[in-house]
Amino acid sequence: MAKKDVAKQALALHKKLGGKIRIMPAAPVRNRADLALVYTPGVAAVSTYVAKHPKEAREYTMKGRMVAVISDGSAVLGLGNIGALGALPVMEGKCALFKTFAGVDAIPLVLDTQDADEIVDTVIRVAPAFGGINLEDIASPKCFEIERRVAEALDIPVMHDDQPGTAVVVLAGMINALKIVGKKISTARFVVLGAGAAGTATAKLLHVAGAKNIIVLDSKGIVNRARPEPHKRLLAIFNTKGVKGGLQDALKNADVLLGVSGPNLVKAADIKLMAKKAIVFAMANPTPEIMPPEAKRGGALIVGTGRSDFPNQINNSLAFPGIFRGALDHRVTKITDEMKIKAARAIANLVKKPTAERIVPDMFDKRVAKAVAKVIR
Amino acid sequence: MAKKDVAKQALALHKKLGGKIRIMPAAPVRNRADLALVYTPGVAAVSTYVAKHPKEAREYTMKGRMVAVISDGSAVLGLGNIGALGALPVMEGKCALFKTFAGVDAIPLVLDTQDADEIVDTVIRVAPAFGGINLEDIASPKCFEIERRVAEALDIPVMHDDQPGTAVVVLAGMINALKIVGKKISTARFVVLGAGAAGTATAKLLHVAGAKNIIVLDSKGIVNRARPEPHKRLLAIFNTKGVKGGLQDALKNADVLLGVSGPNLVKAADIKLMAKKAIVFAMANPTPEIMPPEAKRGGALIVGTGRSDFPNQINNSLAFPGIFRGALDHRVTKITDEMKIKAARAIANLVKKPTAERIVPDMFDKRVAKAVAKVIR
Repeated sequence: MAKKDVAKQALALHKKLGGKIRIMPAAPVRNRADLALVYTPGVAAVSTYVAKHPKEAREYTMKGRMVAVISDGSAVLGLGNIGALGALPVMEGKCALFKTFAGVDAIPLVLDTQDADEIVDTVIRVAPAFGGINLEDIASPKCFEIERRVAEALDIPVMHDDQPGTAVVVLAGMINALKIVGKKISTARFVVLGAGAAGTATAKLLHVAGAKNIIVLDSKGIVNRARPEPHKRLLAIFNTKGVKGGLQDALKNADVLLGVSGPNLVKAADIKLMAKKAIVFAMANPTPEIMPPEAKRGGALIVGTGRSDFPNQINNSLAFPGIFRGALDHRVTKITDEMKIKAARAIANLVKKPTAERIVPDMFDKRVAKAVAKVIR
Repeated sequence: MAKKDVAKQALALHKKLGGKIRIMPAAPVRNRADLALVYTPGVAAVSTYVAKHPKEAREYTMKGRMVAVISDGSAVLGLGNIGALGALPVMEGKCALFKTFAGVDAIPLVLDTQDADEIVDTVIRVAPAFGGINLEDIASPKCFEIERRVAEALDIPVMHDDQPGTAVVVLAGMINALKIVGKKISTARFVVLGAGAAGTATAKLLHVAGAKNIIVLDSKGIVNRARPEPHKRLLAIFNTKGVKGGLQDALKNADVLLGVSGPNLVKAADIKLMAKKAIVFAMANPTPEIMPPEAKRGGALIVGTGRSDFPNQINNSLAFPGIFRGALDHRVTKITDEMKIKAARAIANLVKKPTAERIVPDMFDKRVAKAVAKVIR
């Protein structure tokens, strides 16, 4: 389907539906007997019990199964800061995916504030009804602080999904890609183009998973320890060879390029600078840093993108439904790096014989969410 | 069913269900073609459009059909201040009723704060995704201020349901009860026992609907203009004869007693003080101010309660589903007193031949929500 047609059809479908999610009662209310149990007077016993035994709220209320998908609309898809209402269709879509892929009940909340302190306060205040908080499409770098502060305040898992969601799937694809090219994560040279939320989380998770040489770049070139932003100074630590300069300097003899930046920033000539059997994940959406045919012309052996119309779709839909499913099922209070690495391995393991054209499972593969959920504990 | 059995069965049902509401995608996501429309890349067109045309968000997102049911748990049913988690089962039940009675999608939010300023800020910040806000079980008097401030800040209807919900159904029942006893609202003498949220709203709506003589009492007796609380001083204005004292003083020759206070506060001897053909609504839940047989022994001709096991159940379920259904359907930005009076008349009119045992329609009567929704415009 052409791009224009997709846009037109999506608009028509959304108008026809009037929103993409519906609320359904879990039990019918057909008569007074039903009502007496679901609402008054029976509910009073449940409220009294839950108030006295708050830890059991997960069993008696929606808290045990419900995730809030919360955005301030400050960094929506590639569209930028389009605000709360602009973010809402994306959050609704994400909630539809939660249910479809992992049976997780999720509700969108879009906030009429973009102030970090106000976002933190608001999320904490609405948290009691939820078993997990999926922060979404909040601009970098405030997303890091918001995620950290909310997670510290609450005893339910909190995840800004642009970051760990992408990082887990990148790591899953990387495990299989490195296997195919016969390289090791500990000795491979990584280049991460983009120091936003996803780039930062990806570099960090690769590091925790064993990568020892990671050069991160933003629009100003290779990030170094003199950068004013604290989170970028931290990323500079992974540049263990102390490489300086721009993209071409970084790519010399690199084994892996991970693009989490913007469209068309990389040329075939850049890829030619890389080591043999290069791996390129160009994940800018909808237009990647480099189109797969061009990356291959530059010598890349394995190419992944965020798109469904090329092989190796590195899509966080492979991760987030199962992560929250597992967190709810196992009453996890915090999603740790160890869990994320296990989730990446679980996703990678579902591809029995990885090839250059197939390093991750299909996102409609029903085993994925189950395999991920199993290890989030 | 005995009270203990109801409690036991309600607990068992809630544990079995694990919460009373579920999220369902409005459209299936079966394959990449579906995904391209519901989520990326198609959703980008919808987000861009909605961000540019915020007034059309109601058509393209859940905002057009979704109500938030929000409580701080400070005054839950008759249970008092049992906090956010304790309130959650009630809010979930209310959301189940919204869908069952009026097809309104509603989601519970329970807040981890009981500070009025923080509640106001939080509700305003989460409002963008919703077409209406149903505040619920927030303690009096802060509920008045919170409702007013939130309603002023937002362009969607905001209603603290304990108040107008009850008031509308009381007025509906009163219209038919007065018809039966052959009295007029303008000359009848009303006594309202209870000056909390429901009592205040009921007295005010009766006044707007034409009642000219309303004595309101709280635990300290008849409220007068010397009371320290501003909202109680306002209620004293309706006491046009300037009656002083306690319940017995108020009830002398009164035509109507409306109980919105606590259990067993009124005796048959008190009812005997009232005028002939007295009307008594004893709405404390689950134990009324006076049980119907005792009220009748005292001489009351028409008795209503909040209970389903006696005739004339004055239950706000007759009002709130249709009110929000109508507000969503007609894009109402504020629920006015005029609309509430129209809603009460619409409910009353559904009882073709009112009798002392039947002044309001059955809450499972499917015509109710439709009739109410029709006049909320």
